Amino acid sequence: MIVIDNAKDMRSRDNGKPCVLVPTMGALHAGHGKLISYGRRLAGKSGSLIVSIFINPTQFGPGEDFEAYPRTLDEDCSLCAAAGADIVFHPSVAEIYHEDSPEITADTKLIKTLCGPTRPGHFDGVCTVVKKLFELIKPDIAVFGKKDYQQLAVISRMTRELKLPVRIIGAETVREADGLAMSSRNRYLDAEQRAQAPAIRKALLKLKKDTTPETSARIKEAGDIIAREAPLGTITYLQVVDRGTMQEMQTIDRPALAATAVCFGKTRLIDNIEIDAIT
Amino acid sequence: MIVIDNAKDMRSRDNGKPCVLVPTMGALHAGHGKLISYGRRLAGKSGSLIVSIFINPTQFGPGEDFEAYPRTLDEDCSLCAAAGADIVFHPSVAEIYHEDSPEITADTKLIKTLCGPTRPGHFDGVCTVVKKLFELIKPDIAVFGKKDYQQLAVISRMTRELKLPVRIIGAETVREADGLAMSSRNRYLDAEQRAQAPAIRKALLKLKKDTTPETSARIKEAGDIIAREAPLGTITYLQVVDRGTMQEMQTIDRPALAATAVCFGKTRLIDNIEIDAIT
Repeated sequence: MIVIDNAKDMRSRDNGKPCVLVPTMGALHAGHGKLISYGRRLAGKSGSLIVSIFINPTQFGPGEDFEAYPRTLDEDCSLCAAAGADIVFHPSVAEIYHEDSPEITADTKLIKTLCGPTRPGHFDGVCTVVKKLFELIKPDIAVFGKKDYQQLAVISRMTRELKLPVRIIGAETVREADGLAMSSRNRYLDAEQRAQAPAIRKALLKLKKDTTPETSARIKEAGDIIAREAPLGTITYLQVVDRGTMQEMQTIDRPALAATAVCFGKTRLIDNIEIDAIT
Repeated sequence: MIVIDNAKDMRSRDNGKPCVLVPTMGALHAGHGKLISYGRRLAGKSGSLIVSIFINPTQFGPGEDFEAYPRTLDEDCSLCAAAGADIVFHPSVAEIYHEDSPEITADTKLIKTLCGPTRPGHFDGVCTVVKKLFELIKPDIAVFGKKDYQQLAVISRMTRELKLPVRIIGAETVREADGLAMSSRNRYLDAEQRAQAPAIRKALLKLKKDTTPETSARIKEAGDIIAREAPLGTITYLQVVDRGTMQEMQTIDRPALAATAVCFGKTRLIDNIEIDAIT
């Protein structure tokens, strides 16, 4: 028998075998593969790595693509196995959303910008399903991609506020050779759209490299790049926000995030870039 | 890699090695020993059995015995080891109650009777510490003694309402040969008080065996037994309540609980007995 006299040792009593969760909606691509490999490293040899595949209806809005969202379970399982997952968990919608599932509301302050205004209810749906998955799977660590940076911020906040015993880790965005962020939705781009889409990354890089402290000038210039190099795209938003609070910033005087959503036809692509404070 | 397509299998993926928690305030006696042995059986060979020892200040009222509560860690550890515990967890008060510990409020409907009215705040303190311990230890199962039946009801309700992923199990009260329920507080009884204390059990047994459906007559008779055979004791309450809701009952038409608190000097003893509905 061992005696533990402090909370830290209690928490880490099975640190050698953590349970790591990588939540996904399936339609996995090489970006997920990297996320899962990263989860494998976090779990170590003796820990367990679980990939959940669940297309969460509550995070899709009425005009969004829940029904059409790609379902590729067999390929997904192959990719998970190759990337080192121990378990793939793909529950049915009925099982996740039974009568007494309480809805969780995302912190309203965090969703006033970026995807919040144009996707009402989206982050509530995300919080609800993530909390549910945490309860079912009881992971020690959960890994989320930084491509969905606002989602990462919302989930981190929820986890802290509800004191869920899960460590949230953000993983870097994985990109195609030309800079386009990997996404399940890239498959919907036609050849011309696909050729223009890397302008998103180019614009964000330019916005970051700029040296004017005022965000308005930087945003203008980045917007011009997208307008010029991706004329098939329509910018839904292009904003610079505080990395912690997701509030819009006028000058880059603290850690910032530049983020944008650009629609090519019905295909909405998002991307972002971290910008450190100018000192 | 394995694929799991339903919540039940996910939940029970490590059913073979459950983590069982027996929360205590130390000053362990043979009753705890049985509780811990029971926990060992629930955990099985490959599961882990954790006994927490934490004298929780927030569940003691101003006039109660927090400072004087017996502290016998060495003996407690020996008893835990003998009863089959894998881990004894005894954190400091500062560690459990840091600045951002939220207080949990017990369901007010459950604490209108029995110990509720005379111990304001007690069950809030119990809920707060139990939730905290659940978060730290993440047990699959937690075992609570039925001697503190109202506590068991309050914790079961909290666990259900907050959807904490822990199964709550009530364990039968362990008694001395003469029927007195084992308690850390029995050590404070002097010889004369100790000799009278078994009247509590006798009164509750009589109350249960009685055949009148009206609780008032039964309570009167049980109270008489205590008054007659334990003149050094003062009854704080002697009530018959619904076993689920803890509401007072006039007739025993559904599963009931008769429960009492009797003070011998400053030593408050509690006990109870389950009574099935008369059919």
